[in-house]
Amino acid sequence: MTTNLSTLANGLRVVTHDMPHLETVSLGAWVGVGARHDPARENGIAHFLEHMAFKGTSRRSAQDIAEEIESVGGDLNAATSLETTAYYARVLKGDESTALEILADILQNSRFDEEELRRERDVILQEIAASRDCPDEVVYDLAQEAAYPGQPLGRTILGTPETVTGITSEGLRTYLDSRYTSSRMVLSAAGRVDHNAVVRLAEDLFGGLSFADGAGADGERACYCGGVTASARPYEQCHVLFGFESPAYGRPGYFASQVLSGLLGGGMSSRLFQEAREKRGLCYSVYSSVWGLSDTGVMTVHAATGPELADELLGVLSDEIRRLAEDGPTCSEVMRAKAQLKAGLMMGLESSAARAEQMARQLICHGRLIDKSELVAKVDAVTAEDVRELIAGMILGVPTVAVVGAGARSQDHAQRASKSFRPAAA
Amino acid sequence: MTTNLSTLANGLRVVTHDMPHLETVSLGAWVGVGARHDPARENGIAHFLEHMAFKGTSRRSAQDIAEEIESVGGDLNAATSLETTAYYARVLKGDESTALEILADILQNSRFDEEELRRERDVILQEIAASRDCPDEVVYDLAQEAAYPGQPLGRTILGTPETVTGITSEGLRTYLDSRYTSSRMVLSAAGRVDHNAVVRLAEDLFGGLSFADGAGADGERACYCGGVTASARPYEQCHVLFGFESPAYGRPGYFASQVLSGLLGGGMSSRLFQEAREKRGLCYSVYSSVWGLSDTGVMTVHAATGPELADELLGVLSDEIRRLAEDGPTCSEVMRAKAQLKAGLMMGLESSAARAEQMARQLICHGRLIDKSELVAKVDAVTAEDVRELIAGMILGVPTVAVVGAGARSQDHAQRASKSFRPAAA
Repeated sequence: MTTNLSTLANGLRVVTHDMPHLETVSLGAWVGVGARHDPARENGIAHFLEHMAFKGTSRRSAQDIAEEIESVGGDLNAATSLETTAYYARVLKGDESTALEILADILQNSRFDEEELRRERDVILQEIAASRDCPDEVVYDLAQEAAYPGQPLGRTILGTPETVTGITSEGLRTYLDSRYTSSRMVLSAAGRVDHNAVVRLAEDLFGGLSFADGAGADGERACYCGGVTASARPYEQCHVLFGFESPAYGRPGYFASQVLSGLLGGGMSSRLFQEAREKRGLCYSVYSSVWGLSDTGVMTVHAATGPELADELLGVLSDEIRRLAEDGPTCSEVMRAKAQLKAGLMMGLESSAARAEQMARQLICHGRLIDKSELVAKVDAVTAEDVRELIAGMILGVPTVAVVGAGARSQDHAQRASKSFRPAAA
Repeated sequence: MTTNLSTLANGLRVVTHDMPHLETVSLGAWVGVGARHDPARENGIAHFLEHMAFKGTSRRSAQDIAEEIESVGGDLNAATSLETTAYYARVLKGDESTALEILADILQNSRFDEEELRRERDVILQEIAASRDCPDEVVYDLAQEAAYPGQPLGRTILGTPETVTGITSEGLRTYLDSRYTSSRMVLSAAGRVDHNAVVRLAEDLFGGLSFADGAGADGERACYCGGVTASARPYEQCHVLFGFESPAYGRPGYFASQVLSGLLGGGMSSRLFQEAREKRGLCYSVYSSVWGLSDTGVMTVHAATGPELADELLGVLSDEIRRLAEDGPTCSEVMRAKAQLKAGLMMGLESSAARAEQMARQLICHGRLIDKSELVAKVDAVTAEDVRELIAGMILGVPTVAVVGAGARSQDHAQRASKSFRPAAA
């Protein structure tokens, strides 16, 4: 199994990982622009473009695109996140050229037909409505807005019905031309694949992409604020969320934040799972996770329970967070969280799709590939004291508290919970 | 890569698939009993038992179980379906004995402590509440009830708050002793694993399981009825579902039902996706799927849209279904659906977790392992005429129609839609 990286004349990076025991290939184009680079009035445009890429090119109708990839048994999909947009496929070995040819076409020759755009807008409005029916999505969206108020990171990836309705074909074309440049794009493939063959295809198919970085794609620097937010809409369950600013992915404390999140609420043996679910039966799901971006990050703790138990659950979560900040984790907790992170790295390397994504993200985020051994060493270097210092520092900042599902009382629950992190007034 | 199957003296089947290029192993115990074998008054007991297996044995507390598997970076999980219950782990190579030892302990020595049971009941009540906040889960639950009214298959896997509250430690112990017998269980492992070593461990750890089939585990034979159902609870989106009886997994038409479901609503090039989403922009998600059991099956078509568009969406879905039943699919549609099924088989074989599950299910459902070549031949043998005959036969039966999310009007939408499949009165 070997990894190879080439850079084409126009700056496009092509990375492959040969997994000769597999019968399939996962491959795609990752672009280093995402929803945080959306202009405020066009919030949702990165995601809208990702949808419209499948709606027809100068050579293929939407139906042609779908039929061509599926006739070889392949899958074609795409995803928009805050800092990247990905277009990827999984095919049987030997069908790489079919997949790459389609990807090249949809990324360079999309038509953005007006009628297709109007229909796809309706599809996205339904996608937005679906997200509002998921209280767990609502609580994360609200928390993001409270953590980064009035900033690009505080807006949703999908956009609002108003901003989505304002997006035009012309806007999409300008966006694509200025943002989807070769210097921001990585072609990544993992599985039964030959590097030189992929590079030759990439030269043919993507050689015409221009290098120049367009204006405005770096976006504004994030400034974490934090605060209290709630929705009065009733659900069966009340979803509660605490958020704290955590290190950006290139920063020193980033791996400590991964260990912290793991031992706090990452698995069955984590503090929050043991206390809130196992010892108290308060909830079915309770998790912490870390969300690392180029200039900021957030650690979230999220759980759901009956509305009548919301205060009790919020109390348990904040007690556990404060206790960890005071006493620090035990050595065995730290070892367990590290073992899980390292095993997760190993398991990720066994999936061609996960490996292709990992390589692309490393090149976009860090400008280089990072060896497994380097990642393992960084995880291993984290100490219990690093974790304690990190969480102790986090809770000195303004927490983000979001509550959804307890009707009009959601706001009161969130307000009370936010006070549990304030030092008592002198 | 080789597959090996051994049967222990007590009838327990042990199957492994060696994938020497991997660094991890997926392994677990699959038991051939599930929610359809729950006694009516104890609806939810198969799932409750699956939860209680993690709550402590004569040797380990719940916390010990979680810490032991996670300290080697492993994952331990379980899932209850209608006909099977699975307990499985993923670990690094060399840690198979740790995982098997824990699995053997939780499956044979669980304590079902009364206090733990009360707390876990509260966790399950939250799990039930969470499912009620998902309109897509609600629409499937309602459809299942309408398809098999008053029968075990018509009840939910989780049970109701009332039946779950009635489940006792004594009931769980009786259930485990009579149902979790060696003849109904398969140990399956895939990844970097040595067959003989797993067999030796299995003899040590599971050799004491009794063979005898307990009473009542085969359950009653299903009788598909179909009908109209709706929920008046409002959501942002209206979820609509059509269901039709389809072949059981061992029956002749089973592979044709997979091809049918694929070309009707399986991917981007499918009829429903093209018509409802691409041509009309009516919905974000529209899918068909086939649900095959030992004596029955259901093909479902599910989509979601705004409540004001429910009639239009239902009309488009039923028109497409009837049109397919009249004209049959084209040869290229059939070829594409087959290519996708075959590629899916190939992709599934590359994941150790999917491969371990596939082997276990084949042994439980068919009593034997089925070669990839045999599966491919069965898919290849399906003709366009097979598909047309199958769907034409399906729509002669009583359809299941479920609508959720349009408030009080949901019932009317469902009633009107059900009439689109009735032959006009003479």
